[in-house]
Amino acid sequence: MQHPALKVNVSRGSVIESEHQIKAVIVSSDGQLIESWGNVDSLVYPRSAIKAMQALAFIEMGGAEKFGFSAEEIAICCASHNGEIEHVKTVQSMLNKLALSTTDFECGGHWPMREQTSYDLAELGEKPTSLHNNCSGKHAGMLGLAKMLDVSPQGYIGVDHAVQKCIASTMEEMCEYDYGSAPWSPDGCSAPTWAIPLTNLALAFAKFADPSGLSPAREKACHSLYDSVVSHPFMVAGTERYCTDMMRILGKKVFLKLGAEGVYIASIPELKLGIALKCEDGAIRAAESVMTALLDHVGITQGIPSEHLAPFRSVTLKNWNGLISGEISCCI
Amino acid sequence: MQHPALKVNVSRGSVIESEHQIKAVIVSSDGQLIESWGNVDSLVYPRSAIKAMQALAFIEMGGAEKFGFSAEEIAICCASHNGEIEHVKTVQSMLNKLALSTTDFECGGHWPMREQTSYDLAELGEKPTSLHNNCSGKHAGMLGLAKMLDVSPQGYIGVDHAVQKCIASTMEEMCEYDYGSAPWSPDGCSAPTWAIPLTNLALAFAKFADPSGLSPAREKACHSLYDSVVSHPFMVAGTERYCTDMMRILGKKVFLKLGAEGVYIASIPELKLGIALKCEDGAIRAAESVMTALLDHVGITQGIPSEHLAPFRSVTLKNWNGLISGEISCCI
Repeated sequence: MQHPALKVNVSRGSVIESEHQIKAVIVSSDGQLIESWGNVDSLVYPRSAIKAMQALAFIEMGGAEKFGFSAEEIAICCASHNGEIEHVKTVQSMLNKLALSTTDFECGGHWPMREQTSYDLAELGEKPTSLHNNCSGKHAGMLGLAKMLDVSPQGYIGVDHAVQKCIASTMEEMCEYDYGSAPWSPDGCSAPTWAIPLTNLALAFAKFADPSGLSPAREKACHSLYDSVVSHPFMVAGTERYCTDMMRILGKKVFLKLGAEGVYIASIPELKLGIALKCEDGAIRAAESVMTALLDHVGITQGIPSEHLAPFRSVTLKNWNGLISGEISCCI
Repeated sequence: MQHPALKVNVSRGSVIESEHQIKAVIVSSDGQLIESWGNVDSLVYPRSAIKAMQALAFIEMGGAEKFGFSAEEIAICCASHNGEIEHVKTVQSMLNKLALSTTDFECGGHWPMREQTSYDLAELGEKPTSLHNNCSGKHAGMLGLAKMLDVSPQGYIGVDHAVQKCIASTMEEMCEYDYGSAPWSPDGCSAPTWAIPLTNLALAFAKFADPSGLSPAREKACHSLYDSVVSHPFMVAGTERYCTDMMRILGKKVFLKLGAEGVYIASIPELKLGIALKCEDGAIRAAESVMTALLDHVGITQGIPSEHLAPFRSVTLKNWNGLISGEISCCI
């Protein structure tokens, strides 16, 4: 079933103050397009939503076993984390296990994604490092992949480096899309991001949810990654983040991951489904609202107490004095 | 002339990654609708874009003279400031002149709008106060208005308080719109914001640009406010802010002011025009891009060296490593 693009309304008092258009698609692991909203064939940069796919080759090659990475460390390979103390410690531990240091990172640094963490850091008179970069776990995984491929990690963010070629090849198979013809651009962290149709992004995460049709090594790697992220949702994002909060509420039923510019994916093993969506204007608030509505729509939230989901089904907006000013909501 | 809504493209590499829809209108001081894009009759909360109108009654009643407010202090009444040291000092000085203190403020506090200012504050072990609230200058003006009206300032943010009634009455005359029928809601700072058609918002700022048809006291007040904001653009916003940077570039030709959720106004005396726009999805990056295009469109940027305007006509996006990743642009 194909529908027009979804709409998210942001109200203030009795007036719709802003609205967002979102395209979305649900695909099953056998490649069937179950339902779509808006033009899902146009090219979308998955940005950080695809991090689990970027980690797949490393896990598949036995990198986690070789370097003794814990489940938390595997999970943070797939993260856009808040740069909280636990995140920084976890990535530092991975570098130690790889016998590498932050000087090997090519992602750049930025103030922690969580504002309060930034203020805490500043209060200590400290400055952010590349460990605080929300992608630092992904980059630790990429450095690990360089070791598994037995190549120098130097320049690992380059599109022609063996690390990125290996990642592109894995993603190409998972997305069933020709990456040779896909436009690419440096992402926020300088690693390449390739633009692909939203449907192919959803397909990759449907197969991630149900990897039974893949090679035994890849099937095992998908299970390992899935178990790690749903068992350690804090590592995937952090305090007061939608991915983390919703994964906690939904138990181990769904893997959720945001990407910059309003991209979101979900991977649902029990239904053998992948979901991908993109807010046309890049707003994360709208992407999260639609994701909640889609999780309800496919029925995976059944049985979850509604008081747990209510704050996500309709997000209450408050002002600086804590007065309720409006809400964000989406109906399918 | 009526056109479809304007579009702003956000590119990454060779692909349009996100896009925004914007409605906009240009109105002359005699009430003529010169040109419009999208549905400009629907209701829009002007949010902080209307701050100069909220300050008008206080100035018109002679408040600045009575309390000895400087041009910088008049300017910050119209500001959404960064909470930088100079902003905080200026608002504190106004409170001193009013013989009031921050305990009289009812706006709440928040970390400074400018991130670096927040980190600097945190590094000093300090917490933000209501002086750092981007609206603190506006609230100082409202407290001043309570004094001019000879009423207790307590509860001055209430829609039924004499301060807000006086402000609503002034805005009603400037916008030529019945505020009695306008939906209202508490703004971010808890003062009421009334939803009005975008055309009426533009009309108010056309009359602000050319107040010759108004009462002598209001005409004088408009000139005083206009001169203050264009002479002290730093006070209206701050470091690395579009309002401030563009007002500096354009000399005293234009007053520019943003409002939350992608609202922007311009007031252009030399052309006797007011401009109002609203990004449908609330994105400020798109509102700024369209404002630059509209300033070019009406011709007020003629004679300004293009190297000064180029960074605003096409905003270059860079990633954490400083690599160029894309741009934001709008064509009319």
